[in-house]
Amino acid sequence: MQSEVEWMDWLQRKLPTHSLHFVVGLGDDAAVLRLLPGHEPVITTDLFVEGVHFLPKIHPPDVIGFKAIMRGASDLAAMAARPLAVFLSLSLRRNTPERWLEEFLSGVRVACRRIGLRVAGGDTSIGGHAFAADVTVVGQVRRGQAVLRSRARAGDDIFVSGKLGRAALGLELIRRGAKPQDRRLRQDLRQHLYPEARCRLALELARLRLPSAMIDLSDGLSTDLHHLCRASRVGALVESSELPAPKLPHERATRHLDPIQFALHGGEDYELLFTVPSHRRRRVPRRLAGVPLTRIGRVTRDPGIYLVQKDGRLEPLLPLGWDHFRKQKK
Amino acid sequence: MQSEVEWMDWLQRKLPTHSLHFVVGLGDDAAVLRLLPGHEPVITTDLFVEGVHFLPKIHPPDVIGFKAIMRGASDLAAMAARPLAVFLSLSLRRNTPERWLEEFLSGVRVACRRIGLRVAGGDTSIGGHAFAADVTVVGQVRRGQAVLRSRARAGDDIFVSGKLGRAALGLELIRRGAKPQDRRLRQDLRQHLYPEARCRLALELARLRLPSAMIDLSDGLSTDLHHLCRASRVGALVESSELPAPKLPHERATRHLDPIQFALHGGEDYELLFTVPSHRRRRVPRRLAGVPLTRIGRVTRDPGIYLVQKDGRLEPLLPLGWDHFRKQKK
Repeated sequence: MQSEVEWMDWLQRKLPTHSLHFVVGLGDDAAVLRLLPGHEPVITTDLFVEGVHFLPKIHPPDVIGFKAIMRGASDLAAMAARPLAVFLSLSLRRNTPERWLEEFLSGVRVACRRIGLRVAGGDTSIGGHAFAADVTVVGQVRRGQAVLRSRARAGDDIFVSGKLGRAALGLELIRRGAKPQDRRLRQDLRQHLYPEARCRLALELARLRLPSAMIDLSDGLSTDLHHLCRASRVGALVESSELPAPKLPHERATRHLDPIQFALHGGEDYELLFTVPSHRRRRVPRRLAGVPLTRIGRVTRDPGIYLVQKDGRLEPLLPLGWDHFRKQKK
Repeated sequence: MQSEVEWMDWLQRKLPTHSLHFVVGLGDDAAVLRLLPGHEPVITTDLFVEGVHFLPKIHPPDVIGFKAIMRGASDLAAMAARPLAVFLSLSLRRNTPERWLEEFLSGVRVACRRIGLRVAGGDTSIGGHAFAADVTVVGQVRRGQAVLRSRARAGDDIFVSGKLGRAALGLELIRRGAKPQDRRLRQDLRQHLYPEARCRLALELARLRLPSAMIDLSDGLSTDLHHLCRASRVGALVESSELPAPKLPHERATRHLDPIQFALHGGEDYELLFTVPSHRRRRVPRRLAGVPLTRIGRVTRDPGIYLVQKDGRLEPLLPLGWDHFRKQKK
């Protein structure tokens, strides 16, 4: 690529960039979006940094592109917003191979198509020390209908979608030597490599007016539940026996691993955690938009967050999921 | 800082985060904005990468924060949009000193206050190899009133705001040994260190319905004029004698420097380049919102872009401003 003009032309061939919602898309100083009448813009940004959010030796480039998009889409799902536009800022090294970029963009493209996102803008810089992407995802929500973290009330039931801890288990299997291509482990690895943001599920939940509060599980149940409880000024009881923990594959590699620990603290599942007022509990289906829903506990007035063990003991549930400000391996 | 929760509390103390336009601001999965009735969201993202957009040995941290915000605000000015919200994604090294961050955020804060921006969200990652910031700025424009790059027509007059090339001259002076604190050179250095996005000017121009097309001068006149002409499928004649070039300070350091070259190719002035249909030319004031306006040429049907020399010779005006895809010192 010799110039910015060529790069922009190339990007437009590689990515879906046309949308009826774009008054002005790629190629001007800024994008102008047209929302549905009575709707408001919902906006989130997420960084994806080499060595922090992914490891170049482990993660193929299309996985990086795919996850970067799904992470932002998942934030919109947590607000029950409909995704519209993505802005892709890429900081590239000078020697990034064109082939690597093509595969990265192919992951971006597949994720965008799956979620209904189109690329409306971005920025590219060349010459940095490492690859980094910042993804801004913009959606729309009917005025006043966004589902917040802060509206959980004592007595609400706590639900999660899907299975928890599979992404972290997949990463652990790869760390222990499994190949991303391994077909036998595909199910477990898939959640780590190609997580699916729960956009459709979120819109269905909102349509049924079920959630009082919602957050997506990006840092891990224990940490994200703390975020939700803190924002709502409530506490929670989580029942260990109800957690939809992953099934460990019969591998030597998985000996000494505890599925419950993965379900409690494993990040990057991009499932939804939501609370439902108790009088609406019976209206929560077992499965919605193809995804199983599981009641895992209850919101409490007391601000503590506790795990109810199978034998009935209560123990504090510490936020041991992902936190950038704590040193941890990833 | 021990946790993400502490970091968010700290950020909220350091930055302006409250706005009547935020239905949901910092602290949820995504922000929800409320625009004025009949308005549409205008969105831009800009990267600011260590070693590419700034040099840590030359640029104090508050300058980096200030410029990162102004760069995005300037993109909105180029669309004649009113700035509302900023999303700040920061990729930090693990050992970034708190003091450095404080100064960076103080630059962000001053720029936000000056432009009327409030911080609605962002992301922070720790452990990358270098500092990088991605700034998403969101504004609003009345439906259908955004000023595009693509609407210049043959016969339009070409105008610029302010002086051109001062930011590049300031950088050159610093490269040649001037200190950012040097009071004698303050005027010249200021444009490089603390450029001011022309938001107020842009809104005034749009109110008077003067510009047919507009772009901000971030890469340099020659390159940005090429962008505008390419988008509008037109050419241009620029009169060398009309360029508002910088006055060189009487310094040994500035011998052999040509002010016209700075005006033509120097980037980061964040002035506005706009075209005005010729029948409205007389309505363009000499000065608007405190900024001088200068006619520098004319849009042509022939797609070439030429510089009219003082002796009347025409020579091609090549896009020699900033281009990430060309190797160049900065």
